[in-house]
Amino acid sequence: MINFQTSPDRYRHWKLDITGAVATLSMDVSEDDTLMEGYKLKLNSYDLGVDIELADAVQRLRFEHPDVRVVVITSLKPRIFCAGANIYMLGTSSHAFKVNFCKFTNETRCSIEDDSRHSGRRYIAALNGTASGGGYELAIACDEIYLVDDGNSAVSLPEVPLLGVLPGTGGLTRLVDKRKIRRDRADVFSTLAEGLKGKRAKDWGLIDDTFPTSKFQESIDLRVRQIAGTENNKVSGIKLNPIHVEVSSNKLEYKYVCVTFERDQRYANLTVRGPEASSALTIQEIEQAGDSFWPLQAYRELDHALLHLRVNEPEIGLVCLRTVGEVSNVEAIDQALAANRDHWLVREILLNMARVLRRLDLTAKSFFAICEPESCFAGNLLELLLAADRSYMLKDPDRMTAAVMTTELNAGALPMSNGLTRLQSRFLSEPEKVEEILGQSRSFNTEEAENAGLVTFAPDDLDWEDEIRVAIEERTSLSPDALTGMEASLRFAGPETMETKIYGRLTAWQNWIFQRPNAVGEHGALTNYGKPTKAQFDYKRT
Amino acid sequence: MINFQTSPDRYRHWKLDITGAVATLSMDVSEDDTLMEGYKLKLNSYDLGVDIELADAVQRLRFEHPDVRVVVITSLKPRIFCAGANIYMLGTSSHAFKVNFCKFTNETRCSIEDDSRHSGRRYIAALNGTASGGGYELAIACDEIYLVDDGNSAVSLPEVPLLGVLPGTGGLTRLVDKRKIRRDRADVFSTLAEGLKGKRAKDWGLIDDTFPTSKFQESIDLRVRQIAGTENNKVSGIKLNPIHVEVSSNKLEYKYVCVTFERDQRYANLTVRGPEASSALTIQEIEQAGDSFWPLQAYRELDHALLHLRVNEPEIGLVCLRTVGEVSNVEAIDQALAANRDHWLVREILLNMARVLRRLDLTAKSFFAICEPESCFAGNLLELLLAADRSYMLKDPDRMTAAVMTTELNAGALPMSNGLTRLQSRFLSEPEKVEEILGQSRSFNTEEAENAGLVTFAPDDLDWEDEIRVAIEERTSLSPDALTGMEASLRFAGPETMETKIYGRLTAWQNWIFQRPNAVGEHGALTNYGKPTKAQFDYKRT
Repeated sequence: MINFQTSPDRYRHWKLDITGAVATLSMDVSEDDTLMEGYKLKLNSYDLGVDIELADAVQRLRFEHPDVRVVVITSLKPRIFCAGANIYMLGTSSHAFKVNFCKFTNETRCSIEDDSRHSGRRYIAALNGTASGGGYELAIACDEIYLVDDGNSAVSLPEVPLLGVLPGTGGLTRLVDKRKIRRDRADVFSTLAEGLKGKRAKDWGLIDDTFPTSKFQESIDLRVRQIAGTENNKVSGIKLNPIHVEVSSNKLEYKYVCVTFERDQRYANLTVRGPEASSALTIQEIEQAGDSFWPLQAYRELDHALLHLRVNEPEIGLVCLRTVGEVSNVEAIDQALAANRDHWLVREILLNMARVLRRLDLTAKSFFAICEPESCFAGNLLELLLAADRSYMLKDPDRMTAAVMTTELNAGALPMSNGLTRLQSRFLSEPEKVEEILGQSRSFNTEEAENAGLVTFAPDDLDWEDEIRVAIEERTSLSPDALTGMEASLRFAGPETMETKIYGRLTAWQNWIFQRPNAVGEHGALTNYGKPTKAQFDYKRT
Repeated sequence: MINFQTSPDRYRHWKLDITGAVATLSMDVSEDDTLMEGYKLKLNSYDLGVDIELADAVQRLRFEHPDVRVVVITSLKPRIFCAGANIYMLGTSSHAFKVNFCKFTNETRCSIEDDSRHSGRRYIAALNGTASGGGYELAIACDEIYLVDDGNSAVSLPEVPLLGVLPGTGGLTRLVDKRKIRRDRADVFSTLAEGLKGKRAKDWGLIDDTFPTSKFQESIDLRVRQIAGTENNKVSGIKLNPIHVEVSSNKLEYKYVCVTFERDQRYANLTVRGPEASSALTIQEIEQAGDSFWPLQAYRELDHALLHLRVNEPEIGLVCLRTVGEVSNVEAIDQALAANRDHWLVREILLNMARVLRRLDLTAKSFFAICEPESCFAGNLLELLLAADRSYMLKDPDRMTAAVMTTELNAGALPMSNGLTRLQSRFLSEPEKVEEILGQSRSFNTEEAENAGLVTFAPDDLDWEDEIRVAIEERTSLSPDALTGMEASLRFAGPETMETKIYGRLTAWQNWIFQRPNAVGEHGALTNYGKPTKAQFDYKRT
């Protein structure tokens, strides 16, 4: 079972040093500390374990070190920044693991860009040596890239020429969409195994500048000081403590999240418990509560559960999303968050909630939301229902009625990867409905929710259990591959962004290539890497 | 060898009837007239041969019948409109053929939308019976969809539930992006093998209206009359004669296009000959010249050559694009086209050129443009150079210098699928350069073209042959799959449109699924279709 939790005192591959407003995140991969057997992490190459630490460091910077304004990402290995994902690890991994590995590393790089864009931290890639493949893809996720000019060090994307696969962590998309490299130059660069060194790399826009070895550190320091400034605006962070989860064979039990597995039917129930009536509401109470504040703890638990489901539960094809709690408590929490959104901690909490919900959007499982009278699909939790592929809401005149409700947080605080809110995505054909529904800021009972188009189906009490049972049976009987491709197409209507291009276009092509005999067959380039033989291709173009 | 040429008198699957401003295109697939062995085209299911006729019909309407204002697409089979792509054909086809088949059918549907958007012809899908899978995808490419209400007929996308693949002809994207169906409803519809009938299909936005059997024809006729109006604005079209090509083992020789194959090196040279000095220039001369007018004939030949390369020459991985002729002749033609762009024939000629260039953008081969002193990469032919993955331009002070040149046509008449011009795509990071280059409207010699960023490499005479030889050798040695994925990512920087989403996101996922054992393995759903056994899935989600 892969463990997604770590903390700086347990890092084996990164050093996190914080001095005033400057954090330095240094890669120093420990060759033998691999997540799986059968490979060594030479030359600062990485596996999922290395990336889990990087993701943790970025997350902790945001919550534990809010006064950091610049993050320098560099390496402690001489002459090498990072050699990218470990090829032997890729060569020995299953297709499903490769796909999940790339998705997680993509999310980590997007989290760096999210921090830069929304929290204003500036990321500097200080390439003290060669950055190849995923190494350059990590650099290109940063705001600025500086490469040492030592006559040897280069940036490169050797995946196509050496491995017969694509740079799988957004590299191709960021080349032309983020750094806006001319597409013919991107073509040359992406087919040039040895990459480009200092001057040409700068001329082509692949790096921002290059400095000779003797001046490298000093030039980076100068740039860092320019950005960090001198005033030291001391803000205390909050501690992110480990997430506690009780794991048994058919259950994951967190404080606010519970996952139960119906393995013979290949689905799980994921229940989020709403906040208590006594939740923190003022900024002082929120700071005091720290990582036990419901919106932070519940979403950290949800994030952990999603990662667990992706990687450790491949046969679970469907997740039924449920909530339990008081709608009014969720409403109160959302009001508190909206009222304090300019405070750094609330901003980070909201941004984290948004990232977790995007992790859900990008999870290759079907999601059904199930709304019953005890549910609390309000505000931020309504996003779960809107993120689901479909929703079922009980219509029962004899019991207290089920209700859903919007809050201010549904109006833009929790955007999808395509930049739209989930309500906007839902009502692409009737954009005026979004304002109409938000404007009412009241709870909708089942009939009202159905009429407003907020839920898919509203069976009555007599049909309820049968209808859900049949829907689950039908869904889990379908081809998991077809569902993955279908959901990836239907979930992201409307505009595309660099992020959706990375997860949609680039990832889908990479997944295609990751199955092709030319990459993973007996004589494929990925299989063949490091062997004295040459890869053998079927040269038919497809 | 698959033949892409046909004409209405040779159609075996469609009837084209034209009465005044109304064309009726009726599907009546002949079961036994299949392109390959081993399947029958029952229930108006189609193979590539059927779609070649449809593409031909749409193309001829535009040139031969400019006064048609409404196109009704319907079926002559009772109770069935179209059952989509033939499953047995898909089940017995190679992966590469399936991919090329879907790409061509996608281009045909996009050509319908192109006609509607730019030439104002309105397409009505008159579903006199069930439209399933590709049948509904054909309907959704039309502007309006009407379904008979006979208690039985439905629209459906049964690919996911029945076949374990995706609707491969844009269906999923058009559901949520064109018709803007709510994504949860799209999810339900796309997993419901039997689809939806009249009223619910209308409520959900899948069709525009439904009429009982007894009123169906009359209701369609009424709607058609509303659109067509009564005034009959008689315009004579021009005849599209067959394209003549001499095929020998290593050569395709057209009048203006020549393809030579270097099979042992897996590349081809595709040379376009520029227009003669005596080309038609006034609108009278253009009408007179008809399909022998250079911009129409040369691009029809180019289109034919590209389709041939895709389907009949899979091992050719690289195409070197060359031109021969006088820059000034191309300039004169472009000026004539630009000056007369409001004339229907010139408009159609330009739109066809744009479609052919998009066909090139979407072709899974590498393209290198080679510019020498005898070349004429000007205006519309400069688009070939800009569409290429990279370009080489000879720098030779001792010979008459090579030159490239922009004309008014590079400023928007020939857009890519992403809606940008190729110059805009090239200079995403410096948008002001586009205006600057267009504003100069002069020819650029090699040094100037290099400085302006119009070409990738400008080797001098001494290095020229070696550099190109090595570049070709290197390119054709790489994994063809990795190149396909790389080019699909680098060619379409910037905004995405419904069209790029169909070719990028949806197609890439479909290609992935088309290789998965759950679809095409021994017990896969596609392999298993029509057999008494049930498909067996590996239920791991990826």
